[in-house]
Amino acid sequence: MPELSEALQKILAIILDMDGVIYLGKKPIKGAAKAVAYLRRSGKKMIFLTNNSENTRRSYVEKLARMGIPVTEDEIVTSGQMAADYIKSRNPKARVFTVGGEGLTSEMKLAGLKLVPPEKATHLVVGMDRNINYEKLTAGMHAIMAGAEFIATNVNNVYPTEKGLTPGAGAIVGALVGSTKKRPEIVVGKPSPLIIRFGLRILGTKPSETAIIGDRIDVDIKVGKRVGLTTILVLSGISKKGDLKKILGTKMAPDFVIDSLSEVMD
Amino acid sequence: MPELSEALQKILAIILDMDGVIYLGKKPIKGAAKAVAYLRRSGKKMIFLTNNSENTRRSYVEKLARMGIPVTEDEIVTSGQMAADYIKSRNPKARVFTVGGEGLTSEMKLAGLKLVPPEKATHLVVGMDRNINYEKLTAGMHAIMAGAEFIATNVNNVYPTEKGLTPGAGAIVGALVGSTKKRPEIVVGKPSPLIIRFGLRILGTKPSETAIIGDRIDVDIKVGKRVGLTTILVLSGISKKGDLKKILGTKMAPDFVIDSLSEVMD
Repeated sequence: MPELSEALQKILAIILDMDGVIYLGKKPIKGAAKAVAYLRRSGKKMIFLTNNSENTRRSYVEKLARMGIPVTEDEIVTSGQMAADYIKSRNPKARVFTVGGEGLTSEMKLAGLKLVPPEKATHLVVGMDRNINYEKLTAGMHAIMAGAEFIATNVNNVYPTEKGLTPGAGAIVGALVGSTKKRPEIVVGKPSPLIIRFGLRILGTKPSETAIIGDRIDVDIKVGKRVGLTTILVLSGISKKGDLKKILGTKMAPDFVIDSLSEVMD
Repeated sequence: MPELSEALQKILAIILDMDGVIYLGKKPIKGAAKAVAYLRRSGKKMIFLTNNSENTRRSYVEKLARMGIPVTEDEIVTSGQMAADYIKSRNPKARVFTVGGEGLTSEMKLAGLKLVPPEKATHLVVGMDRNINYEKLTAGMHAIMAGAEFIATNVNNVYPTEKGLTPGAGAIVGALVGSTKKRPEIVVGKPSPLIIRFGLRILGTKPSETAIIGDRIDVDIKVGKRVGLTTILVLSGISKKGDLKKILGTKMAPDFVIDSLSEVMD
């Protein structure tokens, strides 16, 4: 694919999705570590950006290290971190309640935001949570009923794992929509441009100098198009060739399609 | 309230909602047992009809007995039973998967329906489940992805308990909508007329001879209007005086409003 290598030469920075691009669950995708090393040697700036908010940035550093991909915490961006930035920039005295994993509360604390019981929250942040239960849903519902701003880290319907698809954060958000009849007031993760602009500030590059590599047409490619990035779809995660057929020739079509990340290597 | 007692004289049968009418969680509503006994003495036929599918009909007989209300299993109607009847009447060889409580699987078995793993299901029935977790949501998602008909027992957003509101079956349904982007193909519980017509068949009465007593404008009164029953709203559950103000004078207004069931006594 000579076109892609040409395009990459003009690219200064890359926003890399992780689930479905670098790994599926705990299983690394073949050639991903080599490809990341290659991009680094080519002088590309990189951030590893995920809609998943369950885990801390530190845990992503450790997970990638286990897969032979050395990164620093500054190179990780999560939708939980984005939610914390969104809240803090609007109201530093916000009182936050979360329905999500450890990574989500951790990001709130790192941002210096105060965590409170649901009835006292000014902001409710909802993210992926594989330990979801009725008590957590009840608490989230009470936060919304008490008037908290309903913030979704993302509304991805599914989540790719080594064992197949499982429900994404959209399921947790959907449960709260179903119990409150209120929709999230904002979605901070992809395909919201918010998280990509946040990433570009970290990278210090312009959209025209930046590419996004992701596995979802409706999330990664969509947001790349929205912000004006070069868009590269990998077929190693959620979106498949069949999905691609439906959008080829439309404005939703990615600039490049590759089977897996290893194809970025010349 | 002489008007109500006059209207009740012409009524042969009553469809009684339970949550918010007879009890809140484990706590009986004051005067409810006496009111039911009074209605029995007045010669009214009665069924106790609930959108909740978590529990078996037998367990409702026991619960009401503990509250001093003797009823037979034939007088109980649940949305789980309705779902089983709906499926069986359309496809006696249906293969069913449920996301819900014990009462839901119990009704499927009682109807002679076969329970199967999610991937093999022709029908998915979703109901209230206070033990909901990620594994159950994943299984429900897989059933829908494998093509099962998505049946909701109900989509009530909230559920009244003695400790306040908690999420209703609408939360569980919402989680599956969020993870599949598909909506239920049918809702069998209130405000669907299906379950009321099912109740009328048991009672053997016409809509004009039958009253519904419930605590929810958007569920009980709505379905009563749809089917042509006399509608009686109690203010001991979900709907409050403030909700009533918004609909007075509209076609959604109940025929009668009482604070609690005890007011049916002359």
